[in-house]
Amino acid sequence: MRDVSIIGVGMTPVGEHYETSLRRLALQAVRAAFADSGTTGAAALFVGNALGGQLSKQEHLGALLADYAGMTGVEAARVDAGEASGGAALRQGYIAVASGAVDRAVVVGVEQVTDQTQETRLAAMLGLTDREHEGAQGVVPAAIGGLLMRRYLHEYGVALESFEGFSINAHANGARNPNAMYRNTLEPGHFARAPMVADPVNLFDIAPEGDGAAAVILAPTEYARDWVPLPVRIAGSALATDALPLHDRSSLLTLAAVKLAVGRALEQAGVGINDIDLIELHDAFTVLAALQLEMVGLAAPGEGWKLAAEGAISLDGRAPISTFGGLKSRGNPFGATGVYQAVEVALQVRGQAGANQVPGARRGLALNLGGAGATAAAHVLERLE
Amino acid sequence: MRDVSIIGVGMTPVGEHYETSLRRLALQAVRAAFADSGTTGAAALFVGNALGGQLSKQEHLGALLADYAGMTGVEAARVDAGEASGGAALRQGYIAVASGAVDRAVVVGVEQVTDQTQETRLAAMLGLTDREHEGAQGVVPAAIGGLLMRRYLHEYGVALESFEGFSINAHANGARNPNAMYRNTLEPGHFARAPMVADPVNLFDIAPEGDGAAAVILAPTEYARDWVPLPVRIAGSALATDALPLHDRSSLLTLAAVKLAVGRALEQAGVGINDIDLIELHDAFTVLAALQLEMVGLAAPGEGWKLAAEGAISLDGRAPISTFGGLKSRGNPFGATGVYQAVEVALQVRGQAGANQVPGARRGLALNLGGAGATAAAHVLERLE
Repeated sequence: MRDVSIIGVGMTPVGEHYETSLRRLALQAVRAAFADSGTTGAAALFVGNALGGQLSKQEHLGALLADYAGMTGVEAARVDAGEASGGAALRQGYIAVASGAVDRAVVVGVEQVTDQTQETRLAAMLGLTDREHEGAQGVVPAAIGGLLMRRYLHEYGVALESFEGFSINAHANGARNPNAMYRNTLEPGHFARAPMVADPVNLFDIAPEGDGAAAVILAPTEYARDWVPLPVRIAGSALATDALPLHDRSSLLTLAAVKLAVGRALEQAGVGINDIDLIELHDAFTVLAALQLEMVGLAAPGEGWKLAAEGAISLDGRAPISTFGGLKSRGNPFGATGVYQAVEVALQVRGQAGANQVPGARRGLALNLGGAGATAAAHVLERLE
Repeated sequence: MRDVSIIGVGMTPVGEHYETSLRRLALQAVRAAFADSGTTGAAALFVGNALGGQLSKQEHLGALLADYAGMTGVEAARVDAGEASGGAALRQGYIAVASGAVDRAVVVGVEQVTDQTQETRLAAMLGLTDREHEGAQGVVPAAIGGLLMRRYLHEYGVALESFEGFSINAHANGARNPNAMYRNTLEPGHFARAPMVADPVNLFDIAPEGDGAAAVILAPTEYARDWVPLPVRIAGSALATDALPLHDRSSLLTLAAVKLAVGRALEQAGVGINDIDLIELHDAFTVLAALQLEMVGLAAPGEGWKLAAEGAISLDGRAPISTFGGLKSRGNPFGATGVYQAVEVALQVRGQAGANQVPGARRGLALNLGGAGATAAAHVLERLE
């Protein structure tokens, strides 16, 4: 396989873009990524999107967005893996360029979900669970988070407040990110007073859904430097799955797909987890953040929350996460989230993260989950020296 | 890139499977394909599906079906390109194996659309068009077919009855296929008396939507013969796009994506269109069949229908198409159609097409369209000698 690099990144702010259609959001991100790369045109477009069919009533986004972005004729397809659609689309783009099938590919993640009634949006989100066994009972993703968190509290005997460090860190970082959806900071104590969403998940445990689009341009590393001064090498790429319904997992507190995907991506990159300078992980729920830190080997089972409590996850800590606010503060535009993560890691390792810069960051991990770990897409991105 | 072959094929009958869920249909096809290959297990699963989100309210089919098929942990994603989702999923599976990223991949196309009211189904199908410009006006896919056909009749001055040969051929072949949805034959004269669906498209011009699933197992050609006596080599694979909305195309009667995709697939295979023994093309409408024959170079513009009128498209003609009934008689399970086509071409070049066998078939083309040509997936399959 050919070595592949990211030569351009772009994104829109995450928010409630009532005035901007799904296709226009995607276009803005693609244009920004091309501008960043200084190149125009690509041979393929992979679209990460989760709910465009149910909410915008628009399928077939590959051809639609390729044409709308002025890339008529190119190879194009939409990739769906629930909330991991962005990471899965990045994986397809990576493979396409790595294989030699195409020389330059655009990956865009896009989601338009807020211009709906709460009822419509929640009904669509039931489709992100196992519809027959979970969704049919009204188990929305927030309830899945509640089940996981309840089990974590029970199994490890920790207090609900143990998770507040994740939200405080996310908002501290998001407050400095002009593309973040909620730029307020949280102080210790806010968390304990937050209203419940799906007991024990409170308003500060769960990430807000938002509209947005992010894009990256991929090219063979061999040529990357001809185009841009700071290519970001995809040193490792992997996608793995686990049972979508929680009842089919051997343990609620083991994210098997995360272990598999991160393990493979690190192995491909030839590095260990301690060689990773930052992680954009999938903090749709604080408990998911804790579990991911445990699965990647940065904390023992039941102790992921301690990294947050100790401040290890802050920008200058030993394990920075959610450096632009994560899903919690930057916002969670489902099928776009995985591409936002890649853009953010790329900016970090390029040293262009501004007020959110992790000092000396050279290598980062983008970890995008769908279905609370049913799909895990892991990408190790590093500065091309 | 590594050379890739199909080492197993499987499918369910196409029909109204009210009693069988989407996941169970997919499972049946995957099991049949594994059984055909004599192998078990694969490292990746690519799912072609168009309307599962809107109609079954189930997203995230990659992880869901991987787990349901006993492939927990594997790389998995759903690929959507409207009615070309099956062909696009095959393309992703091909690239994944060709790249070396995975050693064995399953591609399954699945669709469950009939257990719905006509109103619900038509509303979902609006999402297969450009929703903002076509769907919003109530322009369902049948109406798109009507616009194309009206233009064809006008531009080339041919009569509506000129197209009946396509339907007669499809039903003659489908009548012998136990997996076909409508196994009745059509006689000359039936066509002229058929009720209108979307003037001038009549009931015999348009393919029926159906439920079904089809699957193929892909492996490197290098190892294919270790597993099966009759591997089918993917000699050429390509995916191309065109504008989804008809108003953005330079000509309604030019399917630019078909030209691009078929041209690339033939070039990769190192053959010309006259080296192709049969074509499973996308006869969702008779006019689309005529246009595809013109685009691939088997007929001059405006003369595609003549191949049907002359009988050239029958099993023993010089350009056999829809050899198992095509979309018209076998049925059109949207996102599964492209994989059915691949299975049917594979059976033909393996010499296992039974009563539908094209004499001496060694090489065939699977041509799957979405959005009336907005996406075209072309695969040249040949018997591995």
